[in-house]
Amino acid sequence: MRTAPTSSTWRLSDAAHALQPSAVRNILQLTQNPEVLSLAGGLPAPEAFPVEALAEASARVWRDQAHRSLQYSTSEGLPALRQWVAEHLLAQGHRVQAEQVLITTGSQQGLDLLGKVLIDPGQPVCMGSPTYLGAVQSFSPYRPQWLAWRPDHAVPPQARLAYVVPNFHNPTAHAMGLAERQACVQQVAQAGVPLIEDDPYGALWYDQPPPPSLASLAPEHVVHLGSWSKVLAPGLRLGFLVCPASRMDTLGHRLLLAKQGADLHTSTFDQALVLSLLEQGFSLEGHLQQVRARYRQQRDAMAQALQRHMPPGWHWALPEGGMFFWVQGPSGTCTTALLPRALTQGVAYVPGAAFDLPQPGRAPADAPSAHCMRLSFVTLGPQAIDEAVRRLSQALIPLGDVSCSSP
Amino acid sequence: MRTAPTSSTWRLSDAAHALQPSAVRNILQLTQNPEVLSLAGGLPAPEAFPVEALAEASARVWRDQAHRSLQYSTSEGLPALRQWVAEHLLAQGHRVQAEQVLITTGSQQGLDLLGKVLIDPGQPVCMGSPTYLGAVQSFSPYRPQWLAWRPDHAVPPQARLAYVVPNFHNPTAHAMGLAERQACVQQVAQAGVPLIEDDPYGALWYDQPPPPSLASLAPEHVVHLGSWSKVLAPGLRLGFLVCPASRMDTLGHRLLLAKQGADLHTSTFDQALVLSLLEQGFSLEGHLQQVRARYRQQRDAMAQALQRHMPPGWHWALPEGGMFFWVQGPSGTCTTALLPRALTQGVAYVPGAAFDLPQPGRAPADAPSAHCMRLSFVTLGPQAIDEAVRRLSQALIPLGDVSCSSP
Repeated sequence: MRTAPTSSTWRLSDAAHALQPSAVRNILQLTQNPEVLSLAGGLPAPEAFPVEALAEASARVWRDQAHRSLQYSTSEGLPALRQWVAEHLLAQGHRVQAEQVLITTGSQQGLDLLGKVLIDPGQPVCMGSPTYLGAVQSFSPYRPQWLAWRPDHAVPPQARLAYVVPNFHNPTAHAMGLAERQACVQQVAQAGVPLIEDDPYGALWYDQPPPPSLASLAPEHVVHLGSWSKVLAPGLRLGFLVCPASRMDTLGHRLLLAKQGADLHTSTFDQALVLSLLEQGFSLEGHLQQVRARYRQQRDAMAQALQRHMPPGWHWALPEGGMFFWVQGPSGTCTTALLPRALTQGVAYVPGAAFDLPQPGRAPADAPSAHCMRLSFVTLGPQAIDEAVRRLSQALIPLGDVSCSSP
Repeated sequence: MRTAPTSSTWRLSDAAHALQPSAVRNILQLTQNPEVLSLAGGLPAPEAFPVEALAEASARVWRDQAHRSLQYSTSEGLPALRQWVAEHLLAQGHRVQAEQVLITTGSQQGLDLLGKVLIDPGQPVCMGSPTYLGAVQSFSPYRPQWLAWRPDHAVPPQARLAYVVPNFHNPTAHAMGLAERQACVQQVAQAGVPLIEDDPYGALWYDQPPPPSLASLAPEHVVHLGSWSKVLAPGLRLGFLVCPASRMDTLGHRLLLAKQGADLHTSTFDQALVLSLLEQGFSLEGHLQQVRARYRQQRDAMAQALQRHMPPGWHWALPEGGMFFWVQGPSGTCTTALLPRALTQGVAYVPGAAFDLPQPGRAPADAPSAHCMRLSFVTLGPQAIDEAVRRLSQALIPLGDVSCSSP
């Protein structure tokens, strides 16, 4: 078969050109060097995975339901796993029927499905800024107009959705208080706009449990996303989406069709594995207490290390949960320009500008979070955290010649 | 918190309204009755899953790499699994580097990602009709103009993609011959349009192996999709996509960004499980020989049953591979209207009209495949197949009062 030796260019869609790269994933590539201590990734500590309990659950699945767990299954997810989610949420004050639960391939997929069925090109979406980068990645092919918004501020009625991470925000670690939550659901209810409550970190609290979820405060106004990635293990890609009961025939139906087109269903085996774990002899609460104790210790180690090593002019708040410190440098600092120097010192972080909403043509120095950095405390142990922050502080002195406009 | 007691309607996207339901999934709901023998689903026989070998591979993963298999991993997929795919395709004459392989959450996800990065609303896509329903589901939110097309016919240069299932097509079981393949790649090369070669069934041949893949004939003009669903187990949702080498910086880059937004990556555990199976002591070829022997026997049983039971005026070809018989009734027959009568007799199938390209406002009787039905021979054993076809034949006599326009 002879075809033309030179290939013509294939026309890509407008969506393809709108797709945003992930600065975090690009930086992770730079930190493959084993001598670099990385505070960049949001990788949970592997030691916190309940490996033995999962291996036992896996053996049970192979013994009792191997054939069923390898077969096609319903797009909605395994009924018993949806039921578990409903009961789990009810215990937290969010009254949900199993029928409202859609099992997703990580909560990341929930964001993609929601973008697909809610966003038309050029229509506004309300996002915090800085915000979770993955949400920007999921929504970007649907080409919204990005509106930087605060969760207690008014929502324009023409917005297609508003997005919040209420518990221990990525990257800022902000935890919305009850009054802020109440104001937020009031705003979206008044505007008639869906609120996406993305809650991967709610179980990772170190001082006190968070206030009630926004979905429990206003169930008909909120689509709630949850995940097993941070509480069990992220590699299984298991999350869930809860659609308001009164919107099952509209939004819920369209989400299900979108799910069928996206991947037919989430891995039957992985669902059966987690279900077997949760149903038989495993204490999720006991496991979470261990995870919290581990991360609390690492958080405190990072707080002490920052106190000990960081030069004057740098500020941070103690995160009440989640995985990150959000550290702010002196005005004019450019953490993007600082990163190569930090890598030379053997430490990595994610520059703040990576989390700002996309704005074509904006100079890096003009990004609202140009002077900030995100430091993860969940991957390294306390001693390595201290050494990493010490190296970081070395990279920050002297600061004089580092601005985003420097070559 | 008090919010308005009545909820306003949420505005859904144009994509949401364009999403197509799956008639097959709807029919599967009707066949939950255990007294119904279903020839409707494309469920592989669970007895054909290599359960013991997978359970052993699973035990190895838990023993040797539990932490790694539960952690986040790269969006491209596990490097060793991508390498396996490249070597597997090379052995079939398709020269591929591991870097060209993207591991997907089933090959269904490959279709969604391709739709996202190639299709703009109103732009033509070339599809066979009847065609794989799942491809219509995946592409529909991107709102193409559907062009019914034959693979050896001209492709309009403005088409965004052309789509073929070359081996043992779903639903028609058609196997493209070498000349048809050569004509097809010539057409897409001349038009400068990407050809999507969707090949879930290539390994399921019962008489002789299929001709070379279209990707091997014209590697720069074809995006090749493969899957482990039909050869190992569908519940794991593992597939792959191969991008032409010269298009990695354009299409390949955009597909990777789309994959990140869609689900970050495919289940690390499921990838590690299949990789461990394929790398250690399992003969895929030996397993496939068993699968082929099983399905060949069931195919032959269905051919005999059709010969024995079907009334005059019904026609079919013996499928050379895959999972389905495509059975055509007398002109004027409406298999959609016949289905309730078949269910009453205790047998289910999928009416042909379900596989025709969407065309709003078309009456069911005017669907090109209104007189056809798809019968799966992979789920039931030979005896049940004979009984199912016997029941089906009972539903077809008398035919007089069944047309799509009858009440």
